[in-house]
Amino acid sequence: MKLYEWGAAPNPRRVRIYLAEKGIEIPTEDVGVPNSGDLKPEFLAAHPHRRVPLLELDDGTCIGEAMAICRYFEALHPDPPLMGHDSKEIGVIDMWERIAEFEGLHAVSENFRNSRRTFTDRALAGYEKALAQIPALIERGETRTMMFFDRIDAQLADNEYVAGDSYSTADITTLCTVDFAIFCKLPVPDGCTNIKRWHETVSARPSARA
Amino acid sequence: MKLYEWGAAPNPRRVRIYLAEKGIEIPTEDVGVPNSGDLKPEFLAAHPHRRVPLLELDDGTCIGEAMAICRYFEALHPDPPLMGHDSKEIGVIDMWERIAEFEGLHAVSENFRNSRRTFTDRALAGYEKALAQIPALIERGETRTMMFFDRIDAQLADNEYVAGDSYSTADITTLCTVDFAIFCKLPVPDGCTNIKRWHETVSARPSARA
Repeated sequence: MKLYEWGAAPNPRRVRIYLAEKGIEIPTEDVGVPNSGDLKPEFLAAHPHRRVPLLELDDGTCIGEAMAICRYFEALHPDPPLMGHDSKEIGVIDMWERIAEFEGLHAVSENFRNSRRTFTDRALAGYEKALAQIPALIERGETRTMMFFDRIDAQLADNEYVAGDSYSTADITTLCTVDFAIFCKLPVPDGCTNIKRWHETVSARPSARA
Repeated sequence: MKLYEWGAAPNPRRVRIYLAEKGIEIPTEDVGVPNSGDLKPEFLAAHPHRRVPLLELDDGTCIGEAMAICRYFEALHPDPPLMGHDSKEIGVIDMWERIAEFEGLHAVSENFRNSRRTFTDRALAGYEKALAQIPALIERGETRTMMFFDRIDAQLADNEYVAGDSYSTADITTLCTVDFAIFCKLPVPDGCTNIKRWHETVSARPSARA
């Protein structure tokens, strides 16, 4: 198997952190074109999913979407569980992971991809045809990112980790979102003291360097 | 337990179809305000998730996000599997379900919520603060919906169901997306003959009436 990824992007990092937490090592190939925001033409020509991370299995099956790749590995290597160990945990972790993706990572991406000249006509990742940037989404992305921080800060007031007592994939997606937001000059507001406490804790785990 | 839902909306329907396929019956409460696009104020005041479907367990735990709710039930009632029975199936189904949600359902919603007077200042579901409509997203939503149809039609050229040989949650999200698109006057183009064949098949299942 092989994991296609791109060192600079937040979505491949979700999978790298997951694999580091599990202690799983697999071959990887970086298919980003440095300093361009592009993926290599030969990767795009061969893979209709057109996004990284993408896991190619030995039989040629390709699995895209960061959390779908993690879920493949979770079924193969259930311990330690990062997606819950009983039905309630499984549901709650999936909920918070999706909130982090839809309300967090998508919001930062909305700000990022609509504001950079690099992504003119590629305002959403993975599409072959042109999708124009929409200037109004720059501000909406920032507004939504700040609302996401408020929501996560409230959740972390009562919980050690994003989805409860244990570190999970919900923390992985939230961490990649927060660090991507910092890169986009959308830092966590000083008032979000619970996020600050949590961010220090999860950033100190060896997996955060992945 | 109780499932909060809203009869007219596509996301609660994903859970209803899933439960019908599994033969699971649970108490439900419709918290939509008829003819308004609003959820009832008492539901919004009590549930910070502010979206349906929302599953409330007997201990008060709430699980939101349609697929997180389905995954909770999948852990309790694994047969028949609707999210895969081995690691490869689990990964591939999760991938296609997420493609259907991000590239399909979100695209139709983008067209829908930015074009209706009902949703002025509520252009995205679930936010307490105002989010203005963005007219450019009406056309982008339509463009993305048509690109989603092309992608799913190509996938269904080689597969009986969206994620392979078996009916799965990827079919449920795609069906709810197609029917929501039809409601939004974004029908499947005549050239997408594979989607037409698949849509007849999955719409004939008793669960499609849910």
